[in-house]
Amino acid sequence: MAKEEEKGECGGWKEKGHENGVCTADASAKPITGDENPQPPGWFAEYSPLWPGQAHFLKIERVLFEGKSQYQHMIVLESTAYGKVFVLDGALQLTEKDECAYQEMITHLPLCSIPNPQKVLLIGGGDGGILREISRHSSVVHIDICEMDMMLIDVYREFFPEVAIGYDDPRVRLHIMDGSEFLKSAQVGTYDAIIVDAFDPIKHEIFGSPFFETVAKALREGGVMCIQAESLWFPSLNLPKLIHTFRNIFKGSVSYAWTPVPAYPSGVIGFLLCSTEGPHVDFTRPANPLDHHDAGSSFGVAKEPPKFYNAEMHSASFCLPSFARDCV
Amino acid sequence: MAKEEEKGECGGWKEKGHENGVCTADASAKPITGDENPQPPGWFAEYSPLWPGQAHFLKIERVLFEGKSQYQHMIVLESTAYGKVFVLDGALQLTEKDECAYQEMITHLPLCSIPNPQKVLLIGGGDGGILREISRHSSVVHIDICEMDMMLIDVYREFFPEVAIGYDDPRVRLHIMDGSEFLKSAQVGTYDAIIVDAFDPIKHEIFGSPFFETVAKALREGGVMCIQAESLWFPSLNLPKLIHTFRNIFKGSVSYAWTPVPAYPSGVIGFLLCSTEGPHVDFTRPANPLDHHDAGSSFGVAKEPPKFYNAEMHSASFCLPSFARDCV
Repeated sequence: MAKEEEKGECGGWKEKGHENGVCTADASAKPITGDENPQPPGWFAEYSPLWPGQAHFLKIERVLFEGKSQYQHMIVLESTAYGKVFVLDGALQLTEKDECAYQEMITHLPLCSIPNPQKVLLIGGGDGGILREISRHSSVVHIDICEMDMMLIDVYREFFPEVAIGYDDPRVRLHIMDGSEFLKSAQVGTYDAIIVDAFDPIKHEIFGSPFFETVAKALREGGVMCIQAESLWFPSLNLPKLIHTFRNIFKGSVSYAWTPVPAYPSGVIGFLLCSTEGPHVDFTRPANPLDHHDAGSSFGVAKEPPKFYNAEMHSASFCLPSFARDCV
Repeated sequence: MAKEEEKGECGGWKEKGHENGVCTADASAKPITGDENPQPPGWFAEYSPLWPGQAHFLKIERVLFEGKSQYQHMIVLESTAYGKVFVLDGALQLTEKDECAYQEMITHLPLCSIPNPQKVLLIGGGDGGILREISRHSSVVHIDICEMDMMLIDVYREFFPEVAIGYDDPRVRLHIMDGSEFLKSAQVGTYDAIIVDAFDPIKHEIFGSPFFETVAKALREGGVMCIQAESLWFPSLNLPKLIHTFRNIFKGSVSYAWTPVPAYPSGVIGFLLCSTEGPHVDFTRPANPLDHHDAGSSFGVAKEPPKFYNAEMHSASFCLPSFARDCV
């Protein structure tokens, strides 16, 4: 580098030396102490166990609801930046501002990847937003949803009617029960698509668990499964292991997508998509596009067209940065 | 919806009524008060003025450096989640964990969009990371950088040598001066590409300012400019106005890209790309690809291939969610 310290308004510090800078970069730099998880009043603080050492803080205007079902603790907050926010056992679940990104992507990534989906099963997703998105697909004739907690559904219906509107679709059949139990009695090869929005594949001990075997069995040949799969930025995400495990279970295609969701820790969320043996599924190209300029997207119970998903976003979500692409 | 409350482990709450839930969703819900910008000890808290009501908190292990130049206040922190972090006047500038995303995208989006870039001007970007990325391009023969603050460069050199390594490229010519001043005396049509990493187009009053007129004049016909352009999630981002303004100034193509950067508020950062009149530039397709499997990417001073950028990420970054796509 040819350095050229020019005259005029520039420079100055170099000549003066470091007298303004106080360098403490040596062994004497004392570790800083502080609260492990501070909770300043007036703010909701979310500490992600999947990426310790960082937190997302939301300023809170009002607590709209607080209650406890037999399964879990629920809070509905009015936030300054994200509108209404639903918190489940201390973890942020959904915000009005960005729910479109998660709900639309976890639904249309699988449903737009196969032609003519007819029977869909949703495990979890009790808020109703994924139902609202499934509802846009006119080919669908039957939607089963397994949600354990009826109180959760009622709280969403009261405070997030534009999300819970998904329950208004007459094709929806609600089963208040555990998805694993439901799957045990599901007929082999029933579903074109199964969406799992009930737990995180990293946090839970799914490796070696029979749950996904039952999901795969309930799918038809060339049927598809989509599950939330954390963030590429999390040090705890072992993508090669995740993909290897799911490839062994589902036997068809396995792909990883990611999409921006600002209220989720690190600002992105991933999805794992799997197909069973049978007709090949290329998840990266929507074989069954749902463009909101098409008449198809005005089908169903949603009052507005998709805000986030479109065919370009679909394909783009499978493009991964080099550090991840090379391990898939 | 056909509701089917099944037996077994499920349900229960509905029958019991709401006795567990305490609904406070009425006019009596008191507003919550608290600190406007809490700063818990042991944590670095960043409050973005562009999206009030939310904050990103990083747990801090050590303060490695604190100092003040004639222009600004600098802190280097060792964080738990992001490695070393550089803070300028209270705003997070760079982290070891995610600097690759920002530096690689702001550099290769413009440089890979035109064939054979030779002369490049960088305004700001004193950390050296963008220089490191420009250095990968073997076609480049000359790199000017304008950075006002020599102390900032020295601090980066000391604490972030893998970022500041960009200065080691013999094609780099450092001008310690204000970029606006430098541009006033720049010859018309000199540069193939100009990268502006000095300020934010939203925060600063660039509309009506002559700065970008001088940038456009310093570019050759069909030359390109790239500037950081905030987040699509910010309510303050007026994308149609931004694009309209820049189209009037640069007269060629104008495109908006976005990419995940977890330490940036909302988890994504945008880029505005403009070309001047002349040979048409399609920013969405890299005419001059830099794939890290190519020999080309081992060119220059960087010790490792790109971690984030690749040709697929390049094109994907221009795919926008429907709420933004329809206003571009």
